[in-house]
Amino acid sequence: MATSLRILAFAGSLRAGSYNRKLLANAVESLRGKAEIDLLDLREVAMPLYDGDLEQASGLPEGARAFKARLAAADAIVLATPEYNTTVPGTLKNAIDWASRGPDNPFRGKAVLVMGASPGSFGAVRSVMAVRQILTGLFAVIVPAAVQIGKADQAFDEAGRLREARSLATLEKACAELLRIATALKG
Amino acid sequence: MATSLRILAFAGSLRAGSYNRKLLANAVESLRGKAEIDLLDLREVAMPLYDGDLEQASGLPEGARAFKARLAAADAIVLATPEYNTTVPGTLKNAIDWASRGPDNPFRGKAVLVMGASPGSFGAVRSVMAVRQILTGLFAVIVPAAVQIGKADQAFDEAGRLREARSLATLEKACAELLRIATALKG
Amino acid sequence: MATSLRILAFAGSLRAGSYNRKLLANAVESLRGKAEIDLLDLREVAMPLYDGDLEQASGLPEGARAFKARLAAADAIVLATPEYNTTVPGTLKNAIDWASRGPDNPFRGKAVLVMGASPGSFGAVRSVMAVRQILTGLFAVIVPAAVQIGKADQAFDEAGRLREARSLATLEKACAELLRIATALKG
Amino acid sequence: MATSLRILAFAGSLRAGSYNRKLLANAVESLRGKAEIDLLDLREVAMPLYDGDLEQASGLPEGARAFKARLAAADAIVLATPEYNTTVPGTLKNAIDWASRGPDNPFRGKAVLVMGASPGSFGAVRSVMAVRQILTGLFAVIVPAAVQIGKADQAFDEAGRLREARSLATLEKACAELLRIATALKG
Repeated sequence: MATSLRILAFAGSLRAGSYNRKLLANAVESLRGKAEIDLLDLREVAMPLYDGDLEQASGLPEGARAFKARLAAADAIVLATPEYNTTVPGTLKNAIDWASRGPDNPFRGKAVLVMGASPGSFGAVRSVMAVRQILTGLFAVIVPAAVQIGKADQAFDEAGRLREARSLATLEKACAELLRIATALKG
Repeated sequence: MATSLRILAFAGSLRAGSYNRKLLANAVESLRGKAEIDLLDLREVAMPLYDGDLEQASGLPEGARAFKARLAAADAIVLATPEYNTTVPGTLKNAIDWASRGPDNPFRGKAVLVMGASPGSFGAVRSVMAVRQILTGLFAVIVPAAVQIGKADQAFDEAGRLREARSLATLEKACAELLRIATALKG
Repeated sequence: MATSLRILAFAGSLRAGSYNRKLLANAVESLRGKAEIDLLDLREVAMPLYDGDLEQASGLPEGARAFKARLAAADAIVLATPEYNTTVPGTLKNAIDWASRGPDNPFRGKAVLVMGASPGSFGAVRSVMAVRQILTGLFAVIVPAAVQIGKADQAFDEAGRLREARSLATLEKACAELLRIATALKG
Repeated sequence: MATSLRILAFAGSLRAGSYNRKLLANAVESLRGKAEIDLLDLREVAMPLYDGDLEQASGLPEGARAFKARLAAADAIVLATPEYNTTVPGTLKNAIDWASRGPDNPFRGKAVLVMGASPGSFGAVRSVMAVRQILTGLFAVIVPAAVQIGKADQAFDEAGRLREARSLATLEKACAELLRIATALKG
């Protein structure tokens, strides 16, 4: 049954070598075969900074429409966010701000697993909190699982896999919860 | 099917005339007949301020054990919280802190609808946010519905019912979401 | 003495008709003659979305450097922020993220008054909270004054002035606090 | 000049062996000779859980009045808070809730340094954030310095002193900032 789920996976960073891309890849690996995965790179849906005048004049820009379409086509979402200045990066928030505009809210009712990684000790915990708050406000159902990877510069091996067995187990349990909740909500 | 659900309902205030008791009563009315309701008054489970030395010496106090038992017996939770000083009241947080101690976490996996009321314009929105964050941290599944009643001193009629049709509709939709998500998670 | 202060004033919105531009104009009016005001339009310092690879390749973009220079030249800051999706707009956060990069932190030690306006009842209170948190993390000194204007679509008269005497008094007191704290910190 | 300052110091925990008491003691040591220190143990000002009916019937309880008096007599405050369930402990929040009642707000205008310690990696960072938000709402001036001690069970030597030179330097710089800002605001 779970294999009929479609999950959108993306990292909230544009940087090619982003720790959060690596973290996301570990989640995708864990979900593979259990759901259909749509792996999105935010650079594929480039959009300008949100500007109400721009929206009024020309509607949603192409990247925002593409991002909304990818979100809308998914049953559930997994994302990995960096933390900049104690909270959600402007880049990720801007993408969510655009996606929240227009007639349909693509987050509504969807199970979302919010993970985070940072080079410091805090593992992007404040950014994870902020993204959960934002997406709850958009009527998503947050999967209550704590995947917050600190010292991310040392957390991945050369193949990009989480080094610590405990971190990997936490991530795998979180992915299982995402599948369980998304399946329950869809069923 | 939904009638097999057991929902614990409580307000995060000790005051007899609390606006949040009134708000909670509206939710209980909306849920009646659709689930078994256990209506809790926090004064029934009086507990001391959390103190790690007290816990070490004597374990959980009686009120905390009773609160945990009521939480544990429920499939889902609806609560209404005041806002004191921009966030969760100490009284409610203290009850949650005690309930989070000991071998079993009674919030884990349960759907929780967090509502709020306040006499000011903000409708306890910051307290609702804080309680959602706290309970997500305890692995509850937050029902993404916004029941935040501002100007609460004028919001209820003499029978205690929400005056504004729009507020009542929002509350009823939120209660339906609680039932839907709790049923899905249990199923 | 206070007249030797230089205060940077900006709104966290790009939209020309922004309520927060109007709110900011009220603060600028209140501060006029008491400090030198540098009124910034974020559109003057247009910058791309933050991207670590872009920063690595080409350093800070011109708009970000210009924004940092305006911040650095100020003794204190007043800003007015919209609220998008329960928190800071991506656009404003992106500007702060860029400004936080590079050798000098232009927010350090500066008194900042964070105001907010929104068409809803909450007056951008969650965005104000978020911006305070972000700027405290960047070592600014937050002026503890609550200028949060709800129902902003009805809050300003045709000349753009706050209609309610109480709101105006709150704003004027907040501006006086900004001057007092900035002067004390500089002195 | 700074020696004329009176600083209230307290930890947000009742437990005798609290890490936050130890952290506070390090701050007190750093401040000694530079200000008059009033070291408060929250157990000295024991108070019931906040209850609006109790307040209505009998006013502020003795412990709350004593706490308010100690706060009121101080020019500035340093506190160290544990983190329970991702945010401020109920015990500390309850004390602040009581202290915020009645005619005078003893936090208004005072410089406050908020520190935190926890046995986990996050160093109580979310609780520090929450306490800053609460006290900003009560019109205190938050000292923007990050003293957040993770792995607190290993952070102190047998004499109770912070083991890591870097942590101690951060704390000492934060205490110097508290003195500087409190002195500026008083002057």
